[in-house]
Amino acid sequence: MIGLTNYAGVMESLMNSAEEKQPSSPLTNSWAKKQESSKSQKPNGVGGFVLVHAGAGYHSESKAKEYKHVCKRACQRAVDQLKAGALAVEAVAAALVELEDSPFTNAGMGSNLNLSGEIECDASIMDGKSLHFGAVGALSGIRNPVMVANRLLSEAQKGKLSAGRIPPCFLVGRGAHDWAVSHGIPPCPSDKMATKFSLSAYKRNKRKMELAEKMDTGHNQTKKRRQSSENENGSGCLDTVGAVVVDLEGNVAAAVSSGGLAMKHPGRVGQAAHYGCGCWAENACNMNSYSTAVSTSGCGEHLIRTMLARECSAAMQSEDAHQALLEAMQNKFISSPFLASEDRVLGGVIVLRCCRCVEAQPSQNFQGILGKTFKQRPPTMESTTNLQRSGGLLNTAN
Amino acid sequence: MIGLTNYAGVMESLMNSAEEKQPSSPLTNSWAKKQESSKSQKPNGVGGFVLVHAGAGYHSESKAKEYKHVCKRACQRAVDQLKAGALAVEAVAAALVELEDSPFTNAGMGSNLNLSGEIECDASIMDGKSLHFGAVGALSGIRNPVMVANRLLSEAQKGKLSAGRIPPCFLVGRGAHDWAVSHGIPPCPSDKMATKFSLSAYKRNKRKMELAEKMDTGHNQTKKRRQSSENENGSGCLDTVGAVVVDLEGNVAAAVSSGGLAMKHPGRVGQAAHYGCGCWAENACNMNSYSTAVSTSGCGEHLIRTMLARECSAAMQSEDAHQALLEAMQNKFISSPFLASEDRVLGGVIVLRCCRCVEAQPSQNFQGILGKTFKQRPPTMESTTNLQRSGGLLNTAN
Repeated sequence: MIGLTNYAGVMESLMNSAEEKQPSSPLTNSWAKKQESSKSQKPNGVGGFVLVHAGAGYHSESKAKEYKHVCKRACQRAVDQLKAGALAVEAVAAALVELEDSPFTNAGMGSNLNLSGEIECDASIMDGKSLHFGAVGALSGIRNPVMVANRLLSEAQKGKLSAGRIPPCFLVGRGAHDWAVSHGIPPCPSDKMATKFSLSAYKRNKRKMELAEKMDTGHNQTKKRRQSSENENGSGCLDTVGAVVVDLEGNVAAAVSSGGLAMKHPGRVGQAAHYGCGCWAENACNMNSYSTAVSTSGCGEHLIRTMLARECSAAMQSEDAHQALLEAMQNKFISSPFLASEDRVLGGVIVLRCCRCVEAQPSQNFQGILGKTFKQRPPTMESTTNLQRSGGLLNTAN
Repeated sequence: MIGLTNYAGVMESLMNSAEEKQPSSPLTNSWAKKQESSKSQKPNGVGGFVLVHAGAGYHSESKAKEYKHVCKRACQRAVDQLKAGALAVEAVAAALVELEDSPFTNAGMGSNLNLSGEIECDASIMDGKSLHFGAVGALSGIRNPVMVANRLLSEAQKGKLSAGRIPPCFLVGRGAHDWAVSHGIPPCPSDKMATKFSLSAYKRNKRKMELAEKMDTGHNQTKKRRQSSENENGSGCLDTVGAVVVDLEGNVAAAVSSGGLAMKHPGRVGQAAHYGCGCWAENACNMNSYSTAVSTSGCGEHLIRTMLARECSAAMQSEDAHQALLEAMQNKFISSPFLASEDRVLGGVIVLRCCRCVEAQPSQNFQGILGKTFKQRPPTMESTTNLQRSGGLLNTAN
């Protein structure tokens, strides 16, 4: 429930057997061994992997079970796709659809309402194989924004439009809605996308905002900052959802979807629609030894201005990815000069790295991290590494 | 005039005396010497510099004079601001307003019309001093989109909104329009933003498109590609405008504005609104020896997927900026794996680099480049370096 300070962001992972249990530290090589041991069952000796999250916001612990369930369902959807031979990009889209359909997440159904009481969603998807990208911003009246982003991606892969026009990779607002409908994605009345929960949160937030504006005498910065903290603890609706996937052929993909900040201005677009900021996926190539996939969650403006998804992808090209990611979260995000004027920095990532070190003997390792920065107090989880400016990077997956 | 293949992109530069003539190769150090020789007239021994362009598209040579005039006026506006003590970010916004107001450029007034016959503009601005960024996408009914982007930037610098809400850095569509109007930026009826020229181009393009769709039997790729070439030569409306500025204190700023591709889908957002893609500005700091500012022009989708503005900024941290930029244009753009599926890559940049090598003895050098990739034949200008895949990087300023 919005209003509590407890952490209930969850991460679930399923091997493509959908049975194997994730180790407590996904940065060990134990997964690679598991992959190798079961490679005889998979094409080319490569296994798939799915990692999803339901957001870096603060939730009620009473809803932790729901979040875990939806994460598990999202993993299962993606795993089913992989088993049926789908590519990573289709599997990651399937996971996102499940996350968007949950009324508990701030994506698709039940998203945060904006200042005008409307739902406007952002989403994007990236395919590490083709390096194509599709995104929608401030999209209303579509139940699954990620499906529109995915359709933009696949349409762009088909090449130019009539008369040599270049297909768009990023559509916003009414235009995005109309494009989606003209491509067979059904519209969904806005009132059906709001839930009792999102409507009551909107009313509560609106009252809070009006009260804050009344109390704000205009120049009392101390008071302003206090209100800020109350808000951040009280309705820190930063629950962008996301997933990263590697398929049976070793292709990676990433996706992200968000209803955006509660009480945002209409038309505001966050990192979930922004290239390099909300998600990133890049197959290994001549220049990069590793395939990487990243999905971010947190305050959109902070994640945009630091291009966190791409930074984390670049960090994972280091041999010691764990250390490089810690440094990237510290230097490129928490202590980034781009956020020097921010009193608190909010965000986190899930990442996946996959390598084929020797072509003759294919081997892979998969690495999943839920990175998360905190505001006033870090969550009480094991293996939390506190970083400067109230930041933390979680090594555990539960 | 849209429909001809001649190149009429122009670049004008004025020292803050508005008199000094730009050297034929802006990558020499001659400007630094000029700065030093005149430093006694300027605060802290630092001079300002303005560089603007009117787009990387193909124009009629008959309009070259108009483009040169508007570039000169835009430079003068920025120079006037600098002389009055304005910071780089204000000066660059002033230059962009002049470029947007010209009915000849594809930005603000007289922008390309989209598929529905409407004008939707993208613009962004970045301040190298604060590292703040403001952007608008698919914005209709506002004469100067860059003013909205600049206002977003300056509002974000003021800190949080009531109840601790984080101010937006990127607004799109109707929401962006309403935000602008509520912040005192007057609306402009859409029919006043279209010009006879843009309306007749729209009608011509629409006829072409309809003809192409009739001719397109669905699967004839050869024919499709031919149509594509015809279109690219015939109406290559890629004329994003931009400017880069360093002010009297040595702060840099960059801005970009565009009406987008002709006949784009409504809601399509190009690189001009995309962080790291349309413009970049970063003052020198502990990590970077040089202050850099970049503004890009060309096909938005290509510029987004390669984050060209930021890549060029990073390249300019090399000692040999000229060589590094050539390599960046070649490896990170023209031959980028992100554009491997594109048959032609369209785009260019103007850049500015400024250093204070020794703090005790301030010295600066300013470097301006108009980079431009070509489609079928390079423009007939001196010092053009042809790059692979029909690319070129111009070292000359005229």
